[in-house]
Order: sequence, then C-alpha cells, then structure tokens
Amino acid sequence: MKKIFYLSIIALGLMNCAQKQQFPDAAFPLKVADVAPDRPMSSAMKRAFQHYEAPRLLDNELYTNFKYTELKGFNYNNGDGTISRRDPSKIIFENGQYYVWYTHRETPLPPQGKGNANDTLPSTDWDLAEIWYATSKDGFTWEEQGVAVTRPPKPQPGWRSVATADILKFKGKYYLYYQAFNAPSGTYDEAKDAYDICPVALSVADSPDGPWKPINKIVIPFGESNEWDWRVIHDPMPLVHDGKIYLYYKSGMDQRDANRKHWDCWGLAIAEHPEGPFKKHPLSPVMNSGHETMLFPFREGVAAIVGTDGIEHNTIQYAEDWVNFEIASVTQLLPTAGGLFSPDAFTDSKNADGITWGLSHFINAGKNWKKQYSKLGRFDCDLSQSVNDPTMKRSNVLMPNDLYFRYGLSKKQRERIEKENNQRILNQ
Amino acid sequence: MKKIFYLSIIALGLMNCAQKQQFPDAAFPLKVADVAPDRPMSSAMKRAFQHYEAPRLLDNELYTNFKYTELKGFNYNNGDGTISRRDPSKIIFENGQYYVWYTHRETPLPPQGKGNANDTLPSTDWDLAEIWYATSKDGFTWEEQGVAVTRPPKPQPGWRSVATADILKFKGKYYLYYQAFNAPSGTYDEAKDAYDICPVALSVADSPDGPWKPINKIVIPFGESNEWDWRVIHDPMPLVHDGKIYLYYKSGMDQRDANRKHWDCWGLAIAEHPEGPFKKHPLSPVMNSGHETMLFPFREGVAAIVGTDGIEHNTIQYAEDWVNFEIASVTQLLPTAGGLFSPDAFTDSKNADGITWGLSHFINAGKNWKKQYSKLGRFDCDLSQSVNDPTMKRSNVLMPNDLYFRYGLSKKQRERIEKENNQRILNQ
Repeated sequence: MKKIFYLSIIALGLMNCAQKQQFPDAAFPLKVADVAPDRPMSSAMKRAFQHYEAPRLLDNELYTNFKYTELKGFNYNNGDGTISRRDPSKIIFENGQYYVWYTHRETPLPPQGKGNANDTLPSTDWDLAEIWYATSKDGFTWEEQGVAVTRPPKPQPGWRSVATADILKFKGKYYLYYQAFNAPSGTYDEAKDAYDICPVALSVADSPDGPWKPINKIVIPFGESNEWDWRVIHDPMPLVHDGKIYLYYKSGMDQRDANRKHWDCWGLAIAEHPEGPFKKHPLSPVMNSGHETMLFPFREGVAAIVGTDGIEHNTIQYAEDWVNFEIASVTQLLPTAGGLFSPDAFTDSKNADGITWGLSHFINAGKNWKKQYSKLGRFDCDLSQSVNDPTMKRSNVLMPNDLYFRYGLSKKQRERIEKENNQRILNQ
Repeated sequence: MKKIFYLSIIALGLMNCAQKQQFPDAAFPLKVADVAPDRPMSSAMKRAFQHYEAPRLLDNELYTNFKYTELKGFNYNNGDGTISRRDPSKIIFENGQYYVWYTHRETPLPPQGKGNANDTLPSTDWDLAEIWYATSKDGFTWEEQGVAVTRPPKPQPGWRSVATADILKFKGKYYLYYQAFNAPSGTYDEAKDAYDICPVALSVADSPDGPWKPINKIVIPFGESNEWDWRVIHDPMPLVHDGKIYLYYKSGMDQRDANRKHWDCWGLAIAEHPEGPFKKHPLSPVMNSGHETMLFPFREGVAAIVGTDGIEHNTIQYAEDWVNFEIASVTQLLPTAGGLFSPDAFTDSKNADGITWGLSHFINAGKNWKKQYSKLGRFDCDLSQSVNDPTMKRSNVLMPNDLYFRYGLSKKQRERIEKENNQRILNQ
C-alpha cells in the first residue's frame, strides 16, 4: 500500500507541476478489472485504486462491521451500580483458556462525584478500583478469578485506585501496565495545577494467574510542561515488534483549553525491556485521534481501531512502519475501550494474521445515573487475513429508525432555527 | 485546503527522494499554536495540520453531528404500509415558505414483491409512485399539496412509476429531474439483460406550484455497454456552477457481479441548459462511494455528505474544483437519502455558506415487513460557515448500550468461532 501511495504522490506532484489534470481518452470501464493502472482518474477514484488496499470494501482486509454479544458469568449485583467492570486488557490464550484483566470496582454505593467521595465512596466509575481478571474456555462465558493487582497502602502509587490495565508477555514473563491514582479521579492537584495525575505503573508475574509483584518506578515519564504529553500518559498498550516493546499511549494537547478536551493523540514509546527505559519516538504523536484506541500487529505493520474522539474517529488505520498511520477504512458502531484477542501481539511475526474478536465496555449500564456502572461485552469482527466473512464487510448499515430520533435538538437550537426562519420570511 | 495539500505532497515527495523521514529536534509542543509549520511530523499529524481544514474537529466547518426530529402534518394511514413518502428533493424557499418534492406511493396494499405486483399492487416501496410536494413555514410542520408529476399514460416513460426527484431553479423556471420506470421495480428486462431500466426524465414549470410539463426526451444518456454507467443513472442532483448545470448522478460498476452490488459511484454531467445536452465529465466517476449522496455548494467548491455504501461511506467530502473530492471529515448517524435546504444551490455564489438542515427518509417505518413503508423526517446539522454550534461538532458519540447488542452473530458465525476455539485448545 505504501509503495503505491508514494507512486500516487509522485503522479500528483507531476500533475501539480503541469498545472493541469490529464483527462482519459475513454469513459471509465464497466468492470474494475478493465481499469488501466495509468488511467487518469479523479481524486476519489485514485484513492479507490491506489490508496486503499482494494477498490471494493469487500476485499479490504482492514474493513469490518462489529457484532456484539452479552457475556455470561459476571455478577453486577442486579445493576445497582455497586459493581463495575471496564477497560478490558488484551486477551491472551494460556493454559488452554482465555485470560482478560480489567478495572473492577466494588463499592458500597455507585460513583458519587468528586465532592462526595471519601475513603469508601468512589468519585468516578474507575475510582477505588483494582485490576481483576477472568478466564474463559469459549470467550463468551467467563469465570471471574478475583484480584490481580491490589491497591497498595498509602502513599504508594495507586493507593487510591489502579485502573485501565493492559497485558504484555515477554520472554516467558507477564507484565501488567496500568494507571496508578493517588487521589479520587477528578480531584484538582494544586501543586501540579492539574487533575488526575495518574502515572503508568507496572507489575510482573511468572504466570497469568499471578502472584503479581509491583515494580515501584515510573515506567513512562511525562513530557515537560511545554510538551504535548505533559501530565497525561493514559491507556498504555504494549506490543512486541523487532524484539522490542512498542508501547502506545494516549495523551492530549493543550488540555487547559476547554474546547480541546476531546482531542486525543497517541504517542509511541519503545524499550528493550518491559521495565524500560522507554524512549519516546521523535515523531510522536503518531495518531491524531482516538480516546480508546485498540492496536494489533497486522501483516508486517500495526493496525489501529480508532473509535470515539478526534478528527479521524470511526476509522481503522494501518502503519507499515509502526509509526506513520494511514486511514485503511471508515466504519461504524465501533467497540468502546476494547481489549483485543490478538494472537500475534507478542509473537513478533512479520505477517501477523489480525483479529476477529475482543471484549469492550459499555458505560452507563445502570438504569440511570444514580446507578452508574459499566459492563463488559464481546465483539466479533473480521480484521483477519485467514477469516473471510463477507457478512462482516457491509457498508449499507442503517440504524433502527427510533435511534435517530433519540438525539433531538436542544431548546437553544430550536430557538436559533426559529429566528433564522423568521428572518428568511422577513427578507422575502 | 488544496494549496496546503499540494505543499504536503511536495514535502512528502522530497521525503521520499531522501528515502528517510526527518525527525524533529524537540518533542511535540503542548499547544497547537506552537506547532511550527515546517516541523517534521508523523503521517497522522501531517494530515491533522495539512490535509484537514483544521487540526481540531471543532474548527472544521465540514464536520457535523446530525440531530433528527419527527415531522408534523403527514398522514401515513396509521402506518399500515399503504402510504409511503421517500427520497425528498432539495428544499427551496419560495413565496415565503419551504417546498419539498418526494416520491409518494398510495396503494391498496403495501409492497408485495415483484412476483405479486399488478396494475394496482406495487412491487417495491417506490413502485406505482408519483412525485408529490409539500410546503412548510417552519420546516417542521408540513402541508401536503398533492401531486406535482403524475404518471403519464402507457407507454410513455414513467407510466409505471415516477420517483426520486430533485429540483433545479434556473433563469426563473423550475425543473424536476426524476426516474421514469416502465415496469415494476425489480422486473428483469430480457431484451436489455437488465433490471430496473429507469432513465432520467424531466418536467418544467413556471412556478413551484406547477403545473409541471413533461419534456419527453432522455436527459442523461446511459453509457455504452463497456462503460461504468451502462443502464444505470440514478438520483440526478442538479446544482448551478459557473452559469452551468452541474448534475451529479449515481451509477455502479460491474453490477452483474453479486459482490459488487453495494459499490456505488457518482458521475458528473454538465450542461448549459437544464434540458441538455449534458456532457459527462471525462474524470467521472468523481466520487467512489455513496448510495444516496447529498451535495451542496460550499465556499467556492462543492461538498458531499456520503452516507451508506462504499469505501468512503460515513464521510463528508469537498471538491474545490467540483470534480476532485477529498475527505473533509468522518462522521456517524448520517441522514439517508436526504434532501438539503441549500440556499446557495442555484445562486452560483463563489463563497457559499453551506447548510444546516434538510429532510431525509426512514425506510422500514412499518411495524414489520408486511406493513413496509417509508416516512420523512428532519435533520439538523452545522455545515454552515455562518452558524457556529459546537454542540454539533462532538466526536465522542456513543450509541445506547442496547443498540450494540441488536446486531448479534449468526448461527454460522457462532459455529466458526466454536470451531476455532476448539482447534486452539487442541493445539495447546
């Protein structure tokens, strides 16, 4: 794809020099197979034939629909908001079963907001949480095994909450990277002029069943105060590439600007060893979008499922060199904060097969905000070279009619519209 | 945007010559305003700063959410499927009110499939239809005015059904372009080896209230049998640009291949006069996606809302030169078969403001397939230079939890997954 992309750049460059776009001699052929490679084309058709993997979405290995299934085996206390599970890790297959780690909260009451939080009542859904894990034989029915990483005693990092874990297997050992909170989420830290300072912490084990031993150091240092990843390194996501740890992480630029808060970028930090030192790639940020991006090795490169937030939300992207991501496809109804079953996540394959499923979370699972919690669910897809499921490659997906009308206009919007209407009638 | 795009192409071209990507000297700045224009960047950040209108989605005039509102004033016979309204035209404002034209079906029974259709029973939702119109003072409450274009007597074009109209105002006259069916939709034409031959027809009037006079000739000729728009020219959509009629239309390549049927492309035909002759632009197809694309003048160019179908579905695109479309943004929950209120559709402005609302259709409005019909609804958005509504620029849109689980796995998919699981356990 990259080579063809460069060729198209050169072609466009030449076109630009000539100041005039060439026209073809004949109309576009009926059959795709009859399209000559050097045919002058409109920009859109050039993308179809040169930028994307294939001119038909059906033939694009990096396009998929997502289908969701409720999980069996998890207890949520009848949905009263006192038990929550969210932010699942990648899923690994060990000892004849699947393993997943996730943020687990079990508190006397649901989240109370930062003003009402105390030693036992949580501010947010991920406050006062621990990293728990579960196993499954089939990926649909799960058995919760209990805690993996507990909160250490105060004032050790994470004493308030440990959350948003991801798993790495490297040279026979298992590593969990996660966020360590020292205050209820949402608390303002006056000394640091910041909310939610939660550095990346790390625990190690010889078996996926633990025991997990915390490594007490900051694994990925924050950027300086003038740098894009100042104070914020979230969602650490480790993969193995070229014998090294490639860890992608989320941060955000210019967060003090209220309008900026939903622009998320992703950086890349590389290390020879899971404990570091991690060196940030100089071209970071390497992704311009994505609140809870999921990455997985694909062919010789890495692919990313970019869900909510940012200028390229709702896309699937690909970086052959693990750094320079291009849009591979646009899709819809993407999983939120998913953890992938990526068999090649740590195999360092030069032709990774891709993925077909994972777990994601569903926030606001409670009947109302007073019973707020999150639950885990499963998604299936076809982003795999070996699976070929055309029913997962549809692009004519309409939502149920009632859904559209759930997102109505605000009073303010109705007023603006009415005012514009009246002005138009007056101007007649 | 174009200029910057070319600069980035040249920059990329140089980079390619050097065979090595340059690295910056310092980490990416915290604030967007501090990003140096010549800073070496990853591909994703290059797009953020050079390809798109703005690095923040909030500042992108061609990004929007869509909010939907039910219309008042239309009777659907209690939803029994005997009345249907679909495929609304652009909306125009004349005589102190809004006008819209649409496909109207009123039949003794709902659609019966092509095998059961007869002189009074329809095959599909758009069979045995006429072009009707309605007016509104506020865009929310509509008053149906009755038929605009009736079905002519057999064997005149459209005797079976006239559908999918769009409106053009040109030099004081009004023109309706629409599809003329000579057989129930879905019928196989043995002589032509094709289904649904429905050429573009045209009617003209001196007032939006009619009367409409049919012009009995084929306005846009089909392509030859080896050309991409053989037998299929759908959804004619006229705009005025540079004093000419720019008419965009849908066709599809290689339709006899079952796998191809959801790949739709759009061509461009240009004429000095609404009745033609129309000359097809040699770079057609000019869009690679979109089953029911909506186009509107924007600034000096033309913008397109590309909903379902194709490799760039769910995007909003822009062509400064009205031919070469680039992706301006990716969005979700787009209107289906919308008709836009585009105040500059026919003004030939060189700085068109854009759009803030339109009507779209909702298929399968009936409680089940036996009561099949479509209804019209309104959508609002912010694709306008003069309106600035940040609540329409959100990119962190999650769907209601129950929606995700409505799209479950098929039995066949569950079987494949189970087989793979078992194989994985065996391979341990």
